[in-house]
Amino acid sequence: MPEKELTVADLSESGLLARIFPRLESSSSVLLGPGDDAAVVAAPDGRAVVSIDTQTQDQDFRLHWNNGYRSTGYDVGWKSAAQNLSDINAMGGTATSLVVSLTMPGETPVSWVEDFADGLTAGIAGLGAPDCSVAGGDLGRGREIAVTVAVVGTLHGREPVLRSGAQPGDTLALAGTLGRAAAGLALLESSVPLESLTPEQRALVDSQCRPVPPLAAGPLAAAAGATAMMDVSDGLMRDGGRLAKASGVDLDLDPIALKAQANALEAAASLLDADPMDWVLGGGEDHGLLAAFPAGILLPEPFTAIGSVRAAAGAGRGVVRIAGESAETVGWDHFAD
Amino acid sequence: MPEKELTVADLSESGLLARIFPRLESSSSVLLGPGDDAAVVAAPDGRAVVSIDTQTQDQDFRLHWNNGYRSTGYDVGWKSAAQNLSDINAMGGTATSLVVSLTMPGETPVSWVEDFADGLTAGIAGLGAPDCSVAGGDLGRGREIAVTVAVVGTLHGREPVLRSGAQPGDTLALAGTLGRAAAGLALLESSVPLESLTPEQRALVDSQCRPVPPLAAGPLAAAAGATAMMDVSDGLMRDGGRLAKASGVDLDLDPIALKAQANALEAAASLLDADPMDWVLGGGEDHGLLAAFPAGILLPEPFTAIGSVRAAAGAGRGVVRIAGESAETVGWDHFAD
Repeated sequence: MPEKELTVADLSESGLLARIFPRLESSSSVLLGPGDDAAVVAAPDGRAVVSIDTQTQDQDFRLHWNNGYRSTGYDVGWKSAAQNLSDINAMGGTATSLVVSLTMPGETPVSWVEDFADGLTAGIAGLGAPDCSVAGGDLGRGREIAVTVAVVGTLHGREPVLRSGAQPGDTLALAGTLGRAAAGLALLESSVPLESLTPEQRALVDSQCRPVPPLAAGPLAAAAGATAMMDVSDGLMRDGGRLAKASGVDLDLDPIALKAQANALEAAASLLDADPMDWVLGGGEDHGLLAAFPAGILLPEPFTAIGSVRAAAGAGRGVVRIAGESAETVGWDHFAD
Repeated sequence: MPEKELTVADLSESGLLARIFPRLESSSSVLLGPGDDAAVVAAPDGRAVVSIDTQTQDQDFRLHWNNGYRSTGYDVGWKSAAQNLSDINAMGGTATSLVVSLTMPGETPVSWVEDFADGLTAGIAGLGAPDCSVAGGDLGRGREIAVTVAVVGTLHGREPVLRSGAQPGDTLALAGTLGRAAAGLALLESSVPLESLTPEQRALVDSQCRPVPPLAAGPLAAAAGATAMMDVSDGLMRDGGRLAKASGVDLDLDPIALKAQANALEAAASLLDADPMDWVLGGGEDHGLLAAFPAGILLPEPFTAIGSVRAAAGAGRGVVRIAGESAETVGWDHFAD
């Protein structure tokens, strides 16, 4: 007879915490970790960069996908780390600590929570953030699983890179990828069974479930003099429009650079009979960095040029064009905000 | 014909944010506020105190109570601010900023969200935290309303006051009240109609819905040399036991001091035929501060003595006694963890 699976309802809060704590790493930035009313983290230049983000079951992730994949706690933990670390990266900073609130139904398996803690830890390490660790958290009950992470980081004594500083003539550059997570989402929501996917297609699913934002790139961009930056979490057209609007400029994208991104998605596009450019222009969640740099400077690794910043043609509405053509003309305006 | 009420599903995220932002105040501690990928807040002594806390509908608050009261967005916003500011207070620090994640069903009225923002702002101001403001946030959808607040604060160059430093011989002291929020909860869950409550009873309901933790007291205790401190959020017996266990001591409570707290709850206790000492010993959410001070020092306002710290009688299990009697003997052990 199979044993009944242990659920969070079977444990006290302290019992559940005793399962979680051994799965977390510590870092030198966390001066006082979990166990008191609050944690204490280092803020060496006298400022802290801070952001918050929630993932809710069936809104931001599914436990069971149409193609048979089951999102693990590990996936959700990894993705929570990635999304939040990316927000600090996008300011030119480096994350130093996370505080994590996890609410869930009583019937949630304890193994899911352990897996979540493992995913958080692996995400922090795997994304290259060795100075960051979980400083504290909160456990609670709810009708659905919801994970909220707040992240604290340091700017290394530099000014933050905002969305609002792009200048006409700047080079528009990208670090990381576009459309991989969106292609992976399309595969997850398709009826093509998980087991039948090629390794290349499966890697796109991984990009959705466990994204790998380019975490070293933000501080490098800040040091190199980036004039504006943000992470692409809602898609290039939409987020590019936000950067353009905040800066009072227009953006012009290079179709050759976009095509290179689209080519990497062919394995999914041909299978699903989709246009990969939809994912490149409309897909978020790869958490690449979109940044503007003064023309002529050597772009820091791993940034590559994907277009240019132009003077606003129409009252600073923040228009994003492709090779000088409006998005309406080339058929991509449905991704604009 | 009544107009259909505007819900969050009727607005875009930016449309909803445009309703929220004008209701928030700014403070000098927030160097870069909402609108970019992350906020920047001051951390003048090179450290940040940080904590996170979630309130979920039907777990931590009800929208409709048995006695007819309806929790407003204002209540939930105020209480979110109070709980989080209290966590920083309990370390001897002062909150400088909040980041707020609000998830909710699409049918949530926009007026509820506006009211929530007003409650956050009023809570911060009304609790006496003029250097604190909302630095950023996240909006999302979920099946129930859930509010997560992460708070960042400063320790003013002092060491944090932990739960673990209490010494035998120390005076045990309290700032704030005990049992008021629990008495208010009992009134909310009773069948006594809200309209029939006296002003004194109604004030207890307010203590549950909009608690007023003693925010100046934490930094004053730290400056006065408190050896241990925490906020009473789960009840005096339970939280006192945690402080005792962390410090490897026992606590002995003064029944006269407890009786004074109980007397203030008579208006509800007589109405509900309840023992007010249940609320004093078991009720959290007033967010008073429990602190230990070296014997003989003048307690800083508004702390008053409620007992003493004793050497651990039994292997540091953290026993809380009343006038030297064990909780079992006097009938209160059901509140211990």
